Amino acid sequence: MSELRWDPVRQHWVIIATERGRRPRDFQMEIKPDHTTNCPFCYGNEDKTPPEVFALRPGREANAPDWQVRVIPNKYPALRIEGELKSRGYGPYDVMEGIGAHEVIIETPEHDKAMADLSVAQITDVLFAYRARFVDLRRDPRFRYMVLFKNHGRRAGATLSHSHSQLIAVPLTPPVAATELKVSQEYFESKERCIFCDMLEFELSSGQRVVKEFASFVTVTPYASCFPFELRLYPKRHAHDFVLMNDRELAELAEAMKDMLCRVRAVLDDPPYNFILHTAPPKQERHGRPEYWGSIEYDYHWHIELVPRLTQIAGFEWGTGFYINPTSPEDAATFLREAEIG
Amino acid sequence: MSELRWDPVRQHWVIIATERGRRPRDFQMEIKPDHTTNCPFCYGNEDKTPPEVFALRPGREANAPDWQVRVIPNKYPALRIEGELKSRGYGPYDVMEGIGAHEVIIETPEHDKAMADLSVAQITDVLFAYRARFVDLRRDPRFRYMVLFKNHGRRAGATLSHSHSQLIAVPLTPPVAATELKVSQEYFESKERCIFCDMLEFELSSGQRVVKEFASFVTVTPYASCFPFELRLYPKRHAHDFVLMNDRELAELAEAMKDMLCRVRAVLDDPPYNFILHTAPPKQERHGRPEYWGSIEYDYHWHIELVPRLTQIAGFEWGTGFYINPTSPEDAATFLREAEIG
Repeated sequence: MSELRWDPVRQHWVIIATERGRRPRDFQMEIKPDHTTNCPFCYGNEDKTPPEVFALRPGREANAPDWQVRVIPNKYPALRIEGELKSRGYGPYDVMEGIGAHEVIIETPEHDKAMADLSVAQITDVLFAYRARFVDLRRDPRFRYMVLFKNHGRRAGATLSHSHSQLIAVPLTPPVAATELKVSQEYFESKERCIFCDMLEFELSSGQRVVKEFASFVTVTPYASCFPFELRLYPKRHAHDFVLMNDRELAELAEAMKDMLCRVRAVLDDPPYNFILHTAPPKQERHGRPEYWGSIEYDYHWHIELVPRLTQIAGFEWGTGFYINPTSPEDAATFLREAEIG
Repeated sequence: MSELRWDPVRQHWVIIATERGRRPRDFQMEIKPDHTTNCPFCYGNEDKTPPEVFALRPGREANAPDWQVRVIPNKYPALRIEGELKSRGYGPYDVMEGIGAHEVIIETPEHDKAMADLSVAQITDVLFAYRARFVDLRRDPRFRYMVLFKNHGRRAGATLSHSHSQLIAVPLTPPVAATELKVSQEYFESKERCIFCDMLEFELSSGQRVVKEFASFVTVTPYASCFPFELRLYPKRHAHDFVLMNDRELAELAEAMKDMLCRVRAVLDDPPYNFILHTAPPKQERHGRPEYWGSIEYDYHWHIELVPRLTQIAGFEWGTGFYINPTSPEDAATFLREAEIG
């Protein structure tokens, strides 16, 4: 059973995923062969994964090899769906059961296609699956936040090369989200404006860090980028929740995402990368009080962050929380803007 | 000129080290040849580095090839020593000049020796150099904190293989240190005890996560380890500041460090790793008020953190601030405790 453990000094929760139980020798064999014939994400191997929880397919039979997008529970989940949420003290620490959900969104049946290779229609289907899973998982009151992310390439943490994203529902608001939610709430309370909208207005008028503008979306390199060629993709009009995007908006988002992925691939020669969706948490109460939900429709602004994994997170970054970025976001934006993506 | 930039939403400072100015192609050639003949850290190549700021050597001539430990300014510093500390607004952001110091401690003249290969006496010399540089840099009132760390192996961020550590003096208290200092101060205010001493007492009586105990030091795997085989090395008796260690204590610390490094190497087959020293900041005022300095002699407790770099920091970790650790600290401690290190 996984556990969430609290470090009272560093002030963080850690998921100790003991079911993965990795021993010393396991870390010396990271590179696995990954042939199409035994890839659990390919057509014909549906029985090698847990039964699907969602799929887009022409037929009616679940787990049949005719899907376009397929969502399955992770075979080695970091958090388990079964159990009750409760924390207890343990000496100077706190611990709670590792309750949550851990799903895998298989983005295409084609083993060798990266997300950047998919058509806008195919990416729209992937986004449709994301939205559907958010809607479903939000019905479980134990989950405070859904983390939707993608690891592309081994150096970015992908253990299977077949293109997929992951969705982890967690029983606590993650620190990064908690900071964003708190800051945007406080900003709104003092100014009655969205902090993200203010930043976007500044970025759009400056233009220095704008990579590509669409009718409803814009891709920028953040002013305080932690990593070289870091990107954020925002809806230009205020919108707090990805889940409220309608089908037409998802199609336009798919176009912006494909554009972003193709630019990163062209400029950086298909680098490993991570992207992550930041959106409002489900509307819930905890101990009778609403959590992060004062004016969230007005103060939060959903977005996608993408980080190419070009540099190592080394001792300095880990030990301080400061980041050293050797490429200015202005230079990165210039390269990405001028990319030839056909 | 480097800049420190503030992200008002994520609430972090980033060092944009524009002088390193890396362009897209620079990231595709990470692996450099590193021959002894052109290694700037080897005897005879002292003129390939900036002039030394400290050295332990039998002779009297600076920058001569007879040193045991040599400290030099980093040729490509993340922060510059020259300039004045001031921040200014820039749209919704803040920015300040990248003032600081960035030094390299060359731990041995022998190109192929890792820190774990050095004798206890040699490691004592290295620790002596650390202490000397802390004492000197603390005289500069612009520096709020000194970050002493080591990257071993390319995957841990080392760009030169010749064994070395780094010391970066920063003009702001890093977030990780700020959290530790604040938490330990608050804990002391309410309990009149050191939070680290309380944790150590629990760990020593439990024993589950103790790797090795010395007369004055102890190595443990943290209860809420973020990474597999993460380690912390503490002085057992309360001590807030590494710099106050006397020569005898440094020699004992060197023994504990060598033991820790050898265990990690034996169990994990010479993995890449980072270690970082967490100690009290210099006693300074800011805007006329003492900073983190109420009862710091009593509430803070210096220590060294070591993280083997076995897993990737992937999308989930970066996007949430949560960590998933696939090896329990109890298992890790067992493996490390039983290591044969001859």
